[in-house]
Amino acid sequence: MNESMLTRELARLALSSHPEESAEAFAAARLGVIDFLASSFAARDEEAIAKLWRVVKAEGGHAQVPVIGQGEKVSFLQASLLNGLIGHALDYDDVHSDVRGHPSTVILPALISVAATEKPSGERFLAAYVIGVETMARLGQAIGPDHYVKGWHNTATLGGIAAAVAAAYLKRFSQAAMEKVIGFAATQASGLRIQFGSEMKPLHPGLAAHAALLSLKLAEEGFAGTRQALDGQLGFFGLYGDGDQDRAKRLLVEGWGEPWKIVTPGLWFKRYPFCSAAYHAADAAVRLREKNKLSPQDIEKVEIIFPPDGDAALVEREPQTGEEGRFSVEYVVALALNGYPLSLDNFTKAPLAEEIKRFLPRIHRSYDAKLSPVPHAVPKGRFTIVAVTTTDGTTYCERIDRPKGAPGQPLSSEELRQKLEHALAGEPDRAERIIGTVSALKGKEDLQQLLFLLSITSRL
Amino acid sequence: MNESMLTRELARLALSSHPEESAEAFAAARLGVIDFLASSFAARDEEAIAKLWRVVKAEGGHAQVPVIGQGEKVSFLQASLLNGLIGHALDYDDVHSDVRGHPSTVILPALISVAATEKPSGERFLAAYVIGVETMARLGQAIGPDHYVKGWHNTATLGGIAAAVAAAYLKRFSQAAMEKVIGFAATQASGLRIQFGSEMKPLHPGLAAHAALLSLKLAEEGFAGTRQALDGQLGFFGLYGDGDQDRAKRLLVEGWGEPWKIVTPGLWFKRYPFCSAAYHAADAAVRLREKNKLSPQDIEKVEIIFPPDGDAALVEREPQTGEEGRFSVEYVVALALNGYPLSLDNFTKAPLAEEIKRFLPRIHRSYDAKLSPVPHAVPKGRFTIVAVTTTDGTTYCERIDRPKGAPGQPLSSEELRQKLEHALAGEPDRAERIIGTVSALKGKEDLQQLLFLLSITSRL
Repeated sequence: MNESMLTRELARLALSSHPEESAEAFAAARLGVIDFLASSFAARDEEAIAKLWRVVKAEGGHAQVPVIGQGEKVSFLQASLLNGLIGHALDYDDVHSDVRGHPSTVILPALISVAATEKPSGERFLAAYVIGVETMARLGQAIGPDHYVKGWHNTATLGGIAAAVAAAYLKRFSQAAMEKVIGFAATQASGLRIQFGSEMKPLHPGLAAHAALLSLKLAEEGFAGTRQALDGQLGFFGLYGDGDQDRAKRLLVEGWGEPWKIVTPGLWFKRYPFCSAAYHAADAAVRLREKNKLSPQDIEKVEIIFPPDGDAALVEREPQTGEEGRFSVEYVVALALNGYPLSLDNFTKAPLAEEIKRFLPRIHRSYDAKLSPVPHAVPKGRFTIVAVTTTDGTTYCERIDRPKGAPGQPLSSEELRQKLEHALAGEPDRAERIIGTVSALKGKEDLQQLLFLLSITSRL
Repeated sequence: MNESMLTRELARLALSSHPEESAEAFAAARLGVIDFLASSFAARDEEAIAKLWRVVKAEGGHAQVPVIGQGEKVSFLQASLLNGLIGHALDYDDVHSDVRGHPSTVILPALISVAATEKPSGERFLAAYVIGVETMARLGQAIGPDHYVKGWHNTATLGGIAAAVAAAYLKRFSQAAMEKVIGFAATQASGLRIQFGSEMKPLHPGLAAHAALLSLKLAEEGFAGTRQALDGQLGFFGLYGDGDQDRAKRLLVEGWGEPWKIVTPGLWFKRYPFCSAAYHAADAAVRLREKNKLSPQDIEKVEIIFPPDGDAALVEREPQTGEEGRFSVEYVVALALNGYPLSLDNFTKAPLAEEIKRFLPRIHRSYDAKLSPVPHAVPKGRFTIVAVTTTDGTTYCERIDRPKGAPGQPLSSEELRQKLEHALAGEPDRAERIIGTVSALKGKEDLQQLLFLLSITSRL
């Protein structure tokens, strides 16, 4: 294959795909929608969202598309910006290891805007989502590991193109228009990792979804653009990648949809509303308490053992609030060993419960460079051991290499339901209706019903 | 200086600047505004603008900011998108050699939106424009020549940051907010040269201006972001540049405003509404006709001599319309030798005049690799020779190394006035009023008057 055919091949593969023929892909897509909505509802009162709302309100615009959990509509493009931010605001949304980033929070906001204005069938919506994840995972593999390492935020740089392809698939673009829309999105690809840790990080997917939809609209109006934006040294892979065009060719197109990337390796759904670097320890602590019937008063000390630097993201050792506790492995483990649920209500701006505060000094971190991570560790190279010593001198240990929710350890439907219910702050009826609608999503009306349900506004 | 201080230094220098103390800088800025408006009015009927209008209209939004030559207002952000496209639609707007791109068509659309909504003084507006050009020229030098060569479109990648700095200066941001706004713009920096030759190319400055203003608004709402986006290997220069942080430091900040970059080397105002690769030949042909009193019927053949590849952008050899003639050196030279003005009305969608069509076969191109460009050639390495042989066997030659309008060969105020008058299709009164307003721009009312004048809608 000639290198100048990458854009053409991606467009051709996407447009000729039939993901609706894969029951597995559709099942995974339904779970993805539920998880994305749970992650979004959980975030609906974040300050960053209120700030962006004020920017959007100052602009005005038609009320066209619902904003998740906000009870209001804004314009087609504005909604993608807001919904992208909302989906990623807590970093609670799905991850895909081929992407090294978050696919759904870019792709679904773009598709929601198209769904609200164009009223496609629910089936077509799910198919477009599968195509979007496929595209993004393949872009992530094709562009190579250097892309992220150098400083790009893959969620944003790859997400815009993937969301544009998904939206153009939803709208049944021609081959030529699909090639152009890829180029319009590629020429807007941006997002720097140097923004990690700020509110700009979760806005990146919003900006990427916005770029995708502007690309879509421009293509629909016949705006002229290159049809070879991915190709050659001046193209997207040449400029944002490491120049290995052979790998790019191979990984972008070979074996497309066999199996679908949304199925294998699949999406990683986050089980807890805190930093995923504490997930291993959380699973270990929950298991220790359950297996050994440990009571907090019997626990004398707790040691949490990481590979060197495995806790780099866990910057809080003495959190004062639940929100700060999102980045504290001590807080997470203390909650679990004291029998508190690892759910949203323990990660708010409220101060720590007194008994948790008193428990924290018993917990310490250490590092072991000699222990080897297992081959199936997620993320690669990671493990965490939690060792609890009781007042009678016994020590109980649990080692976790791959937390619950990660590929190979998927959340069950029931666990996803719980995530959604928690996010909806104890409105099990609404959670039930959303799950019912997503599970049966097929026709036009189903999809409009889902859009109605996602706009609900009741506050935490 | 520590490398982690680049963002801080740029913010500090911009905020502590007093360009209003330089009469030269303000004079250059006034010419820049007039040239930008002329280039924009000339483009007001371009199809790409109509297409973008339809995208914007579908969104709705408050009528806040005038769109140049369109007689209508759109929202704050939307206006920057449209005005950026309009300014660059004909590639007739100014160029800055330090930028290797077009500064005014990003900076001024951003400032126009702020001017319309915030009503600052005309003096502050001009000062902000000077700061924007200074920032963009210095970013262009600091990031190094590789940036453009690798495939970035400097107008877009550097323009967004420069326009954000200019707008934040206009609004008298704090140091901390200025540092953040630089980061918000940097994380949106994009634009690929692979889009050159399409309508997406002139939309790049619109997208960059839009990114700048979204950054401004987010910072005003207290959105959180890094204050060191330009610094280190993960920062803007590290990621988009060649890694030479020493050069970046030096060229970004040393000698700031001494003299202002808008004065030295200054803006290159384009004299003609066609591809600048044909400018040398145009100047040569005009001079040949004038100096030698040549009549078209006396001309037997015309040879146009370039350095190898010097005519790469001039892709049309047998244009059928004036619009196609924008990329035809044959058409341009034929017009000049036949005494037609090299003005807009000869570069429309209308078919070629019969006598021009009949003249074209007498013109040929050739290349001379042995001739050396002169040191002051603009662009570097370029020259064009036009050799006219008359029916009596005489050959007349003109060689041009630096066309009229380029730095060192600036357009006179009178030539700028003519450019504006042509763009306004023979409405000399309006041109007069605009020039008068820009020349006297000082208070708040002056600036609002200018915004009124630039929104006028009469069509070509």
